[in-house]
Amino acid sequence: MSEHQYPASLTHGLSREEILNRLHNRLDEPRYEHCLRVEATAIELAKRFDQDVDRAGLAGLLHDYGKEIPVETYKRVIIEDGFDPDLLQYGRGVWHGVVGVHFIQTEVGITDKQVLTAIARHTTGDPEMTKLDEIIFVGDFIEPARSLPVEAKARKAAETNLEEASRIELENTLTYLIDARKLVFPKTLLTYNAFLTKE
Amino acid sequence: MSEHQYPASLTHGLSREEILNRLHNRLDEPRYEHCLRVEATAIELAKRFDQDVDRAGLAGLLHDYGKEIPVETYKRVIIEDGFDPDLLQYGRGVWHGVVGVHFIQTEVGITDKQVLTAIARHTTGDPEMTKLDEIIFVGDFIEPARSLPVEAKARKAAETNLEEASRIELENTLTYLIDARKLVFPKTLLTYNAFLTKE
Repeated sequence: MSEHQYPASLTHGLSREEILNRLHNRLDEPRYEHCLRVEATAIELAKRFDQDVDRAGLAGLLHDYGKEIPVETYKRVIIEDGFDPDLLQYGRGVWHGVVGVHFIQTEVGITDKQVLTAIARHTTGDPEMTKLDEIIFVGDFIEPARSLPVEAKARKAAETNLEEASRIELENTLTYLIDARKLVFPKTLLTYNAFLTKE
Repeated sequence: MSEHQYPASLTHGLSREEILNRLHNRLDEPRYEHCLRVEATAIELAKRFDQDVDRAGLAGLLHDYGKEIPVETYKRVIIEDGFDPDLLQYGRGVWHGVVGVHFIQTEVGITDKQVLTAIARHTTGDPEMTKLDEIIFVGDFIEPARSLPVEAKARKAAETNLEEASRIELENTLTYLIDARKLVFPKTLLTYNAFLTKE
């Protein structure tokens, strides 16, 4: 587990302990521990691919902050805060990224755009994903407690190639949703298409 | 095989034989015969679901008219005739529907909007598909020479439920493309999403 300290400029002076407290208040124990593992994985990936370790760790730590916020709260925020009303068709699986950043801003006070964007994009992807976005997207999928064959395959790919790991994850997400006859967020398909020619 | 005669109002006076000749000029033997089978299947489906038998048969017969037109011809027509330039990223698998209708209009002289729309949509689907569109979409997938398990499953579904047969075909198309890491036409995904709540 990482005990990475974050620069005050990124947390508006909040200590790591205070961030952990606020995250823990929002999440049950297993999900809180998942977040700590994604933080450590994101830091590792950031070092491996020469990206900003502070932003990667912080985004990894907070990526699931909104996962247990009540559905009714999300619906209210989507309507009142000017989010795309199409989002109402989806559920917390999508919302905790795109809309979850709203709560991270208002309740944890993080305002760094790169951190918030990486969190926003971790559930849906985006055709314009940055390396930092990819690190959170992939870090969530390959953290050490994930043990499915497709996760192991992505973990192996991520040793050298973040785009390939992202592609494996995108394909898995899309085929899972289609096999289960669930709605696919259109931007996730556009992300898949964009990754076919990436790198 | 059907020997359905089409009303002159739909063919601008062209006889069935003349239509068959023009189609045969554009297609090799196996594909020409596939078209005859899709015509017969579309007529059968139209009768089953109380739709326009003439339009269904004619659209089924001509649905693959553009399948063997050279790639360079398609590219020229897309650029010169004001089609969406995004189409250039795709191939004849998509073009022979969306762009193929251009050749059916200019070379066979069919101008009926419902017939042309059903042909245009048979390769990509459309969130607003009509019953006639679904008949051509499904008819192409379940014509009697198709023998894959998924095709048999769709054929069985189409005995009573055209939407369910369409869903089976859409899922198959999407997962095939994703597994093969091929570009997915975004409208096909939107069609899949729309069909989740259809009927």
